[in-house]
Amino acid sequence: MTSPASGTPLTYDQAGVNYDLIDPLKIAAQRAAAATGAHLGGHGFSEVAASRGESAYVVDVGPMYLASIVECLGTKTLVADEMARLTGKSHYDSIAQDTIAMAVNDLITVGATPLVVQAYWAAGGSDWFSDAARSQALVAGWKKACDTCRVAWGGGETPALAGIVADGRVDLAASCTGIVSPKSRLSLGDKLGAGDAIVFLAASGIHANGLSLARKLAERLPQGYLTDIGNGQTYGDALLAPTALYSPVTEALAAAGIVPHYSANVTGHGWRKLMRHPKALTYRITAVPPKTAVLDFMQRECQLDDHEAYGTLNMGAGFALYLAAGDAQRAVDIARSSGVEAMIAGQVEDGPKRVVIDPLNVTFGGDELQLR
Amino acid sequence: MTSPASGTPLTYDQAGVNYDLIDPLKIAAQRAAAATGAHLGGHGFSEVAASRGESAYVVDVGPMYLASIVECLGTKTLVADEMARLTGKSHYDSIAQDTIAMAVNDLITVGATPLVVQAYWAAGGSDWFSDAARSQALVAGWKKACDTCRVAWGGGETPALAGIVADGRVDLAASCTGIVSPKSRLSLGDKLGAGDAIVFLAASGIHANGLSLARKLAERLPQGYLTDIGNGQTYGDALLAPTALYSPVTEALAAAGIVPHYSANVTGHGWRKLMRHPKALTYRITAVPPKTAVLDFMQRECQLDDHEAYGTLNMGAGFALYLAAGDAQRAVDIARSSGVEAMIAGQVEDGPKRVVIDPLNVTFGGDELQLR
Repeated sequence: MTSPASGTPLTYDQAGVNYDLIDPLKIAAQRAAAATGAHLGGHGFSEVAASRGESAYVVDVGPMYLASIVECLGTKTLVADEMARLTGKSHYDSIAQDTIAMAVNDLITVGATPLVVQAYWAAGGSDWFSDAARSQALVAGWKKACDTCRVAWGGGETPALAGIVADGRVDLAASCTGIVSPKSRLSLGDKLGAGDAIVFLAASGIHANGLSLARKLAERLPQGYLTDIGNGQTYGDALLAPTALYSPVTEALAAAGIVPHYSANVTGHGWRKLMRHPKALTYRITAVPPKTAVLDFMQRECQLDDHEAYGTLNMGAGFALYLAAGDAQRAVDIARSSGVEAMIAGQVEDGPKRVVIDPLNVTFGGDELQLR
Repeated sequence: MTSPASGTPLTYDQAGVNYDLIDPLKIAAQRAAAATGAHLGGHGFSEVAASRGESAYVVDVGPMYLASIVECLGTKTLVADEMARLTGKSHYDSIAQDTIAMAVNDLITVGATPLVVQAYWAAGGSDWFSDAARSQALVAGWKKACDTCRVAWGGGETPALAGIVADGRVDLAASCTGIVSPKSRLSLGDKLGAGDAIVFLAASGIHANGLSLARKLAERLPQGYLTDIGNGQTYGDALLAPTALYSPVTEALAAAGIVPHYSANVTGHGWRKLMRHPKALTYRITAVPPKTAVLDFMQRECQLDDHEAYGTLNMGAGFALYLAAGDAQRAVDIARSSGVEAMIAGQVEDGPKRVVIDPLNVTFGGDELQLR
């Protein structure tokens, strides 16, 4: 078991990610990007404007919609690198799955079937690739995740970027392209409304968000990543559980004729993401899932109150489906049949934009999530 | 004018990129990726197998082909950063165009119309984005390149990756998705053969390949990036000329009913890329374009012979079109009308796989390009 890391709480702001500095650029980029949508008209197509600000960008190409995305893994490789140093074991098979999950789990929110993944593996120098065990784990994990999601691995880039990527490190990202077909599968929230059920798909751990905080905590723990989190697992191993892949669930739902009214991938900003759609609606959560052991540990050791923890981390809910109430139980059953634990967690209500977590007495107001 | 930098030639191998270390991983990745193509059958689609190993991956989705790609800029930002330090001027508008060009110029080789670009801007820390002039230049240049290519900027990622991306640096990449429509525009080389004309589209400078060598040379020049390359321009400014965007040309060709038999984006490996198609054919170049001032300077200062220079850098030829001979002059005229200088440079012949540059007495054998 761990000793208390220190007397003071550890929050995400302290972990070194300053969104205030990133956001002005993001806003400028979003405005410039929005102005380019009209170019599609010159090719006989059009953008689906409602997809601006959503997790994937959607274009109407006539018989189907095209969805595309690029997603970064983030800093989870730093945990894998440190665990490799401490234990000799490469976790890059898991890291590969994390990277694909970041892209695929976002792409499917709009109702798309992921078809092609491209790999972006930018190393700090050519010698990164000379660690054969690590390279092979990365390749094997990437392929396995593609197999799980039934996507084609189209290719990618493996640049050596000495001077840009730090020596001994790798910057991992994935792009994903898919289609929404039939077009009736498009789910951008136009049907989202009061009375919809909220179904959570279980998270497998921390996924790939909150890793800056997780790493900061490791520095404060006397045994660092080798700390037992209370179930016999080390903190490092628990963090490196690969992110769940949800496209088998969304494809099974489509096969069963269930079209979600909306979906949210619970990543950065934690459960605040549950209100990511621009509509003014209240999302009432009446049942919370198990936190997963590693997040329970992190909440305790970082001394995060529920507002901070649920507003930052996934806390056991990896993905949210918003469904006609009558579809909710079937959706849960289908998810379980696809190998993903699921639960009916609450419902959408008329009311101000907010997320209300009844069992925890926590509320996130609409002003606590600024995405657009 | 410059003083001779040193007595010894400077080659690409010395510049620190060791392809031998990267290639085994690439080969393992390519094999694993190839095994995933069959997944598309589960969705009612199929991969276009001939696109494996080409510059973009192509999927048959029924009424059209889908093409996708992710491409890295490379290390050109290091030149921009150094020039910003020396002169105070941000070149990130040009850098943005370079990044988009890397993706778009590859995507169009298969006959695709680029539709959506996603931005991948991974910084060494949140504070990278606090340089407002640089950020605004990046956004403005990105939008302008999208405007030129008439693509929609779908969105992207702006992660802050302290510990992975070096402090003060940014790792730039772009993904691009497009369609081949009508399907008859697909150009994967099945019609490529003896008698085809080779048309070169002019390069605008070094583009984004060979920058490791270019930076190494700067270290050897007494005045570094501020060296006058002989035309009043500094070496740094000349290097930072943005990469030409060729999709306006390929779209204009399509509009005129000209479908190239094959296309090659002349990037890494220089003119060896002219034989990138797996067919055993001889590519005879009978006329060489102007090198552009900066490549002429580099060849001289690095003391590269023509075999080394043309096998590494674009040497004025940014993109090659392989066309029915009767279409060649019209293609040149259409390119010029689209604002891109072009020339008939040679022809395809029966014979062993090689590139023969008659005016320079240089030949690249098939064994000098291992891409697959």
